[in-house]
Amino acid sequence: MPERAIGIFDSGIGGLTVLKEISRLLPREELFYVGDTARVPYGTKSPETVRRYALEVAEFLVGQGVKMLVVACNTASAVALEPLASRFKIPVIGVIAPGARRAATLSRGRRIGVIGTEGTVKSGAYTREIHACNPDIKVFSAPCPLFVPLAEEGWAEHHIATLAAKEYLAPLQAQNIDTLVLGCTHYPLFKNTLHALLGESVQLVDSAEETAKAVVAQLPNVGANGSGQGRVRFFVTDVPDRFTRVGGAFLGTRLEGVTQIEL
Amino acid sequence: MPERAIGIFDSGIGGLTVLKEISRLLPREELFYVGDTARVPYGTKSPETVRRYALEVAEFLVGQGVKMLVVACNTASAVALEPLASRFKIPVIGVIAPGARRAATLSRGRRIGVIGTEGTVKSGAYTREIHACNPDIKVFSAPCPLFVPLAEEGWAEHHIATLAAKEYLAPLQAQNIDTLVLGCTHYPLFKNTLHALLGESVQLVDSAEETAKAVVAQLPNVGANGSGQGRVRFFVTDVPDRFTRVGGAFLGTRLEGVTQIEL
Repeated sequence: MPERAIGIFDSGIGGLTVLKEISRLLPREELFYVGDTARVPYGTKSPETVRRYALEVAEFLVGQGVKMLVVACNTASAVALEPLASRFKIPVIGVIAPGARRAATLSRGRRIGVIGTEGTVKSGAYTREIHACNPDIKVFSAPCPLFVPLAEEGWAEHHIATLAAKEYLAPLQAQNIDTLVLGCTHYPLFKNTLHALLGESVQLVDSAEETAKAVVAQLPNVGANGSGQGRVRFFVTDVPDRFTRVGGAFLGTRLEGVTQIEL
Repeated sequence: MPERAIGIFDSGIGGLTVLKEISRLLPREELFYVGDTARVPYGTKSPETVRRYALEVAEFLVGQGVKMLVVACNTASAVALEPLASRFKIPVIGVIAPGARRAATLSRGRRIGVIGTEGTVKSGAYTREIHACNPDIKVFSAPCPLFVPLAEEGWAEHHIATLAAKEYLAPLQAQNIDTLVLGCTHYPLFKNTLHALLGESVQLVDSAEETAKAVVAQLPNVGANGSGQGRVRFFVTDVPDRFTRVGGAFLGTRLEGVTQIEL
């Protein structure tokens, strides 16, 4: 039996932060990544629509024979993880639970902030997962709708990003949070901006890193690829140009072999 | 034969600025508006994908018996107007030509700036239309990717909008433009911000107003509605919640009767 790949997907380029971490921890694994660029973003769309899109993308990856599905998108993880897990027999890993667990472990003062898309915040998924770890933790959430376009503009460390972060984070700072979950796969790009704004007293939790660790933990159940070369294949639903250009800048590396698919 | 409606569409809520102007000039006409909210935005997607989406939306409106199609989206007008006009027998009016003609008439110094989405700017459609009026006019274009999310956040007059406008407009100011085309249906919301930044010497051209005038001019060819009550019906491809909320804030009025459709 040939070695099977790990399937990863997002609405667009955000999930590349997760892909990068998985690739760093598992350099031999073959990775298939789908960016649903014809329908991006998911963060402002309804749970029903995001669920439909996520199932279509996952069907494609499962059809490619992947051994595990990584939902590298917070919005899709928030609203579509259960339908995905019940539809497919392979393990399905989302980005919410790993980040929530890490935040619950880190927070000394039991006051956690969560930032994400409208869809993620509205779903309450982080609050549920954090409370599953410790029901005494107070969770304060804020959507940051400008962060995705700022990241894609290459402005995550621009002074406009600092101003937007000030607006969005003020209510969370007022609640004296000691931990902040970066609940969108684009947000790790704002680490420096957020760190400068919030100071040393607030710890940042990067879902991408935590999710990659969850993938490593799950790997023995589906079989590690002992002899692989770590090949990465990219699939997108719109023409590849913008994905290749913005995604490349996003990852800081050239993206090769991007194929357009129809879902 | 019952009175037929005018069909208007956009990727989302932006086209409501066009609907508002048409409704103001033609208060008796029945208007059908489609916002393709399950696939919004169009501005960052490829011409091929935008064309496919625009044709699907137009098919729906034509199926509803509309007498005219208004493409109330600059990106779709830039890349899909010809396929739409050749597919359907009813008149198809886009937002590019009316704005371009107006700008060409207004510009004394023959130096016009155009701002829009990535898709609109990349298409070169405004430059072509302006040059069709007067090939001696110099056209300088700049995409403003943050403007749509800023408008939808309700921040079109926020100081962050002023800072973003400064970044985006600097290259056009350096070219001494005397006229600026607001080449995206969201951009009329930035009129105050842009006016404050650019001063009296730069005239702003609002495609929404110009397009509504083009609709009035075309009306005799398809028959005006003499006895109508100006009923407006809204159709969206995602669940209506966000459209109703953000679109209502955008138009400054409550949106009633929003129906979800599948394309």
